Amino acid sequence: MSAIYDRVALIGLGLIASSMFWAMKRGGLAGEVTGYARSAETRDTARRIGLCDRVCDSAAEAVEGADLVILCVPVGVMGAIAAEIAGSLKPGATVTDVGSVKRDVIENVAPHLPDHVHFIPGHPLAGTEHSGPESGFAELFDNRWCLLIPVPGSDPAAVARLRALWEGLGSNVEEMEADHHDLVLAVTSHAPHLIAYTMVGVADDLRRVTDSEVIQYSAAGFRDFTRIAASDPTMWRDVFLTNKDATLEILGRFTEELFALQRAIRTGDGDHLHDYFTRTRAIRRGIIEAGQDTDAPDFGRAKKSS
Amino acid sequence: MSAIYDRVALIGLGLIASSMFWAMKRGGLAGEVTGYARSAETRDTARRIGLCDRVCDSAAEAVEGADLVILCVPVGVMGAIAAEIAGSLKPGATVTDVGSVKRDVIENVAPHLPDHVHFIPGHPLAGTEHSGPESGFAELFDNRWCLLIPVPGSDPAAVARLRALWEGLGSNVEEMEADHHDLVLAVTSHAPHLIAYTMVGVADDLRRVTDSEVIQYSAAGFRDFTRIAASDPTMWRDVFLTNKDATLEILGRFTEELFALQRAIRTGDGDHLHDYFTRTRAIRRGIIEAGQDTDAPDFGRAKKSS
Repeated sequence: MSAIYDRVALIGLGLIASSMFWAMKRGGLAGEVTGYARSAETRDTARRIGLCDRVCDSAAEAVEGADLVILCVPVGVMGAIAAEIAGSLKPGATVTDVGSVKRDVIENVAPHLPDHVHFIPGHPLAGTEHSGPESGFAELFDNRWCLLIPVPGSDPAAVARLRALWEGLGSNVEEMEADHHDLVLAVTSHAPHLIAYTMVGVADDLRRVTDSEVIQYSAAGFRDFTRIAASDPTMWRDVFLTNKDATLEILGRFTEELFALQRAIRTGDGDHLHDYFTRTRAIRRGIIEAGQDTDAPDFGRAKKSS
Repeated sequence: MSAIYDRVALIGLGLIASSMFWAMKRGGLAGEVTGYARSAETRDTARRIGLCDRVCDSAAEAVEGADLVILCVPVGVMGAIAAEIAGSLKPGATVTDVGSVKRDVIENVAPHLPDHVHFIPGHPLAGTEHSGPESGFAELFDNRWCLLIPVPGSDPAAVARLRALWEGLGSNVEEMEADHHDLVLAVTSHAPHLIAYTMVGVADDLRRVTDSEVIQYSAAGFRDFTRIAASDPTMWRDVFLTNKDATLEILGRFTEELFALQRAIRTGDGDHLHDYFTRTRAIRRGIIEAGQDTDAPDFGRAKKSS
């Protein structure tokens, strides 16, 4: 495969950026890839492990001459970094991002960008509970979705080129409108993460059950919550603060349903519980059939021999 | 290894009983294993796949002459099945169970049992989202915990023998008091399951986000909830109805914390969120260090090549 962009700049060098770098190299999708991270320690780590062809000491330097600039920083600092690089962007370059919230990123990034660049927000739905420059791997995006959020006036040719990059990284690409994206992600990602964080916090807080008991007996369900509650705190703080309305709406619905189920427990309404628990099985079947998860028992932790 | 019990009866033939059967065969832990399930269809399936050495058409017949009787039915019918088998139990036999709630099982089973048997409640902390006689596999209990809950007057020799069986099945065994068990499990299992069921129900209910979108984009966090929300509805209805007090206590604490986090989102208190999300990471590290989960990114769904 020939390179889709001659020069790519990665701004922020965490899980997503480092995975993109290894996946671009795997596919020969980019010529030179420059990188920048705010922390000197992260830049040193990147240089040591060969993450990026060239690690720069400023974001402005990293984006100079780049055909594609990918903002891979927490959502809350997207606007500030856009301001920092605006004057150094090459005419005709595409600027994209990988943030988990789109309305807020558009509002904070777009005003800083010069007219001579294409701004095409994006969001790869891929990740793990690990973070930092050493957590990336080339296969992260394989068979995962990447959502592109073209803004009014986005150049179709520039969108098509960015789509080709994501397909080269292994993803399936869909386009979506920003507000709808933020609502869909509030349901499929943001509310579940807050709930998982909450449950883990409660377990950690109880005085009558020790942490060591919680840990020792976590295989009974709790540990699945701890995986997503181990995600990067800064990234997630910013997600909740910037997708406030949609997240609070879903959490409101969640609390309402939870109260109804608590009442069913209290009053001994077994039929209500049984009906509810039967209905939720169908969604799981849909996810398995859509190839979005493994049907292996217990996520394949328990190996079935036959 | 020589057989620990000459005759074992499995009452109820779902995931746990079928896994126990295959694990007992793997380890040569039992002589003849009989089985009974209330549904004729389940009994036919068991006969077809060779689950149990002999499948009986009544629970009373299955327990006749058994040295160990294992109740593997939903918690809500433990009392009824105990009444059914009481008259057929062999003097000196041990009766145990695998229910997820212990106080309620003890209160409902013990009164039916004759003085000439040993009653030693148990609870293997192992399972998958699949249920039924065909879902079992020999490795289910390997390196998992099994809790034994001796009641006042339990014979130490009978407890030691049951412990040896569970160790032969691959488990690590601990003893625990019934009320404490029910509280620990409310935290590590029952509350997380109810929360997962609720979140999946909310997603299924929303009108502005379609089921197909929820399914397609579930890899962003939601799918981990759907796995445990696909568990057996009857089993879980009974768990919540019989461990009502502890579950409602934990859910009350959960709601309190969730409200505090929602308020932090609403008021833009990023420090509160960041602190909370940092604290929850420690629990995850503890679980990995204790060997209770895999550190592979994304539960190993995403394969890291290097």
